[in-house]
Amino acid sequence: MSTSISRRQLLGSVAAGSAAAVAAPFAQAACSNVPAKWDETTDVIVIGTGFAGLMAAYEVRKAGAECIVIDKMATPGGNSIINGGIMCVPGNDFQKKDGIEDSPEAMAEDMLKAGLNLNHRDKVKTVCEGALPAYRRLIDEFGVQWKLNTHEGGHRVPRSALTANGSGSEIVRKQLAALEKLGVKPRLRCIMDHIILDDAGTAVGLEVREGYRFGREESGRKKFIRARKGIVLAFGGFCADVEYRKMFDPNLDENFQSTNHPGATSEGIREANAIGAQLIQCDWLQCLPYTSPDEKGFGIAWTWTGATSSRGFWFDAATGRRFVNELADRKIRSDAIIAHLREGHDVLAFGDSKTAKIFEDMRPGMLERILKAGVCWKFDTLEALEKAYSIPKEAFEKTIAEVNESVTTKKDPLGRRVNERLQTLTDGPFYVTRISPKVHHSMGGILTTPKAEVVSIRGGIIPGLYAAGEATGGVHGAVRLGSCAVTDCIVNGSIAGREVAKRG
Amino acid sequence: MSTSISRRQLLGSVAAGSAAAVAAPFAQAACSNVPAKWDETTDVIVIGTGFAGLMAAYEVRKAGAECIVIDKMATPGGNSIINGGIMCVPGNDFQKKDGIEDSPEAMAEDMLKAGLNLNHRDKVKTVCEGALPAYRRLIDEFGVQWKLNTHEGGHRVPRSALTANGSGSEIVRKQLAALEKLGVKPRLRCIMDHIILDDAGTAVGLEVREGYRFGREESGRKKFIRARKGIVLAFGGFCADVEYRKMFDPNLDENFQSTNHPGATSEGIREANAIGAQLIQCDWLQCLPYTSPDEKGFGIAWTWTGATSSRGFWFDAATGRRFVNELADRKIRSDAIIAHLREGHDVLAFGDSKTAKIFEDMRPGMLERILKAGVCWKFDTLEALEKAYSIPKEAFEKTIAEVNESVTTKKDPLGRRVNERLQTLTDGPFYVTRISPKVHHSMGGILTTPKAEVVSIRGGIIPGLYAAGEATGGVHGAVRLGSCAVTDCIVNGSIAGREVAKRG
Repeated sequence: MSTSISRRQLLGSVAAGSAAAVAAPFAQAACSNVPAKWDETTDVIVIGTGFAGLMAAYEVRKAGAECIVIDKMATPGGNSIINGGIMCVPGNDFQKKDGIEDSPEAMAEDMLKAGLNLNHRDKVKTVCEGALPAYRRLIDEFGVQWKLNTHEGGHRVPRSALTANGSGSEIVRKQLAALEKLGVKPRLRCIMDHIILDDAGTAVGLEVREGYRFGREESGRKKFIRARKGIVLAFGGFCADVEYRKMFDPNLDENFQSTNHPGATSEGIREANAIGAQLIQCDWLQCLPYTSPDEKGFGIAWTWTGATSSRGFWFDAATGRRFVNELADRKIRSDAIIAHLREGHDVLAFGDSKTAKIFEDMRPGMLERILKAGVCWKFDTLEALEKAYSIPKEAFEKTIAEVNESVTTKKDPLGRRVNERLQTLTDGPFYVTRISPKVHHSMGGILTTPKAEVVSIRGGIIPGLYAAGEATGGVHGAVRLGSCAVTDCIVNGSIAGREVAKRG
Repeated sequence: MSTSISRRQLLGSVAAGSAAAVAAPFAQAACSNVPAKWDETTDVIVIGTGFAGLMAAYEVRKAGAECIVIDKMATPGGNSIINGGIMCVPGNDFQKKDGIEDSPEAMAEDMLKAGLNLNHRDKVKTVCEGALPAYRRLIDEFGVQWKLNTHEGGHRVPRSALTANGSGSEIVRKQLAALEKLGVKPRLRCIMDHIILDDAGTAVGLEVREGYRFGREESGRKKFIRARKGIVLAFGGFCADVEYRKMFDPNLDENFQSTNHPGATSEGIREANAIGAQLIQCDWLQCLPYTSPDEKGFGIAWTWTGATSSRGFWFDAATGRRFVNELADRKIRSDAIIAHLREGHDVLAFGDSKTAKIFEDMRPGMLERILKAGVCWKFDTLEALEKAYSIPKEAFEKTIAEVNESVTTKKDPLGRRVNERLQTLTDGPFYVTRISPKVHHSMGGILTTPKAEVVSIRGGIIPGLYAAGEATGGVHGAVRLGSCAVTDCIVNGSIAGREVAKRG
């Protein structure tokens, strides 16, 4: 076995970002489940069809290696295809146009502050420095189109590029198209049951089931696929797996919805951990603060609630008062909102006709959609709104007056950064959505080296095994800032793909 | 493999506290490292000689089963024997004498509040309800002697019994004596290298090295010991393992000392995790707020610093002002102190001659010891103290006046609970210690069922494997309250011992 001392050296080298040593052989690893016969052989198998997995597969093919991409669900894209389509990119084209000064260092500082410095600094550096080149490649190689720059909570400046269609699907669809040109079509309804290690503890293939139907857990036909070079774990997080997340954070029980697609379960990360992958920080689960209790999952109401975080405000309907900086980090906002919901109060996101006009420009047709869906409500007058939610008139109109005053003073009583986005809220019709946080992102996960190699519980790495995206931990620390996940997935997905393709 | 659905059911039953199912067989588990020949066979092997391990071994022998207890260090007791000897016991004899009303429910509420509700409620309930019976047994069966009741940070009332000699050694020594009467002497310098699973994934024995010397990692002779009934993991936490703890919390790097004995390393928990034990909440590492930078490890200066938390006060020498409720929970206090230390300021624990007199009654001879050791300093006048640390006179004497005022008003400006312990601070000589937090306790660890069975990463349990004490996670959540660890170790050590002894 590797000694305690050599373990430390190995991990030390991982932390230091130098080439990680291979875990020394040990008793338990000397047990292989390599099948007598492989049903199929390729160079690389990628698990997951979100931003990270598709990026990894793209790099593998670009490097001229064979690649099989699998996903257990019936449709590709995981959480990425339903995500908001905002990518954190210091130095993006809109910042340049607006003359906003920014840098990877500034982004890193904001990530570390929100992350309570639990972030692994080498990972933060990689993501922040990789952001602009990744954004350029998405434009130049994939044809991804961007519309404007948004200001996400916890970021010191607007630095998040929004896709042309206001969704992650703009990126995923173009990644899928680029992959298809390279001859790769993801195999859907194919679930990974086991990562197969050889006698030396090297990951050499997978036991999967084809024709799997999510929710029918015994469905599908078993198959063994060999991977000559290696395997990339890009199966995302586990926020939709109530029992697994409850072990780490008993607060987030059945009473909390998740924004995630139903396939965001734990069997992938359990398998990785069970065959020796080191997990870290899994008890940091992020709630998205601005989701709606009036619809299932991620929904669409958050688009309005999000817009009001810089162009309107949030308040407690029972008191008529704001209670949190609408641009604070997600944890601060979620904790504050949950405290008010526990009092049995409604929390509302408020904006006026000017807010609505800008929103319409940002996301054409969306206001109509959320009104039709019954997750946003329109009121011609403040009186009508106050009546509908029995909001104390005086307190509420004092709140509006304070916000309007901050437009000129640029000083917000709750410390919100006031920029040109905020205009005085004066003219009806007025619009509100209800707010209730939902479990959104698992910050923790598999520990990887700077080369996206999976770190072994026993120190060193598990040869042939790579991971990227939400399946990994360390990038975001305690609290992830909005729009940083897309950057993480694109940057580290690329690294994983390039590195696995290099293996002999 | 066990299905996602059955996994949830299994874990659900664990959470619900009903009998946990055995993890369904799966490929990886079907690889055994059972030796051709065992060197020795017994019923139960206990790893670790702290409160939990010794309690488990005691129960095993009481149940009439054979037991081998191993410890890798040259001396027994781990962190327990150097611990402060305070056990949280609502309803203890001193509370009764002082007419302090308390209950297991009140203790549970305080633990959950400090633990940010990350605690597993079934574990909290077990510990709180088991406290008083465990305390009685320590008196009746082991002859442990207690001296007085202390008020630890985060507890609503004084509810922590202090051992006669003011150290955990009072308990450990009597546990060792009781075990020796039962024919068990711990085998020291015996390290566990591997937990051996059979083909069904049941823990059936250990690969150990006898004659191991800590720090000489390859030392010792390999030996295989079979355990007919099972194995109890009571190897404690990993706070002294900088590389391991840094993976979970990069803040606690080489710049932080630990209060733990040097053997508080990670090889035990790594091995458990590597053979399939589910870990939780390992990134919650607690710093002991009141340790001294003027001595290595736990040291002795904390005794004075602790006494001043209710009988004196803590302040920033550069400002002369208090800055934190000295009885707040450990995380609040550590974070506040670290912030002031980062400014390059000294943080001092202050008390006067009255404080010293009570301290002398509590811990005879200790004041003399800490003065001799050069970790506490005596000043005949305030002027002398102010001069020695260039403390701003006016601000400091205002601080003293405020504290003295709170003795009569019972209102503390920083919200400290003021009780009869606090007397006006007026007469020299005055004493101070310097304060600097040290990494003290790993709240996270191995997930267990209410029967102390180790939960498998794949759901269900690992048959034959039990764990208790700091090696486990879930009892304390995010923040452990002082004196709750002893209770946890005694209560859950007993449960682990009784349960493993029952196995066929």
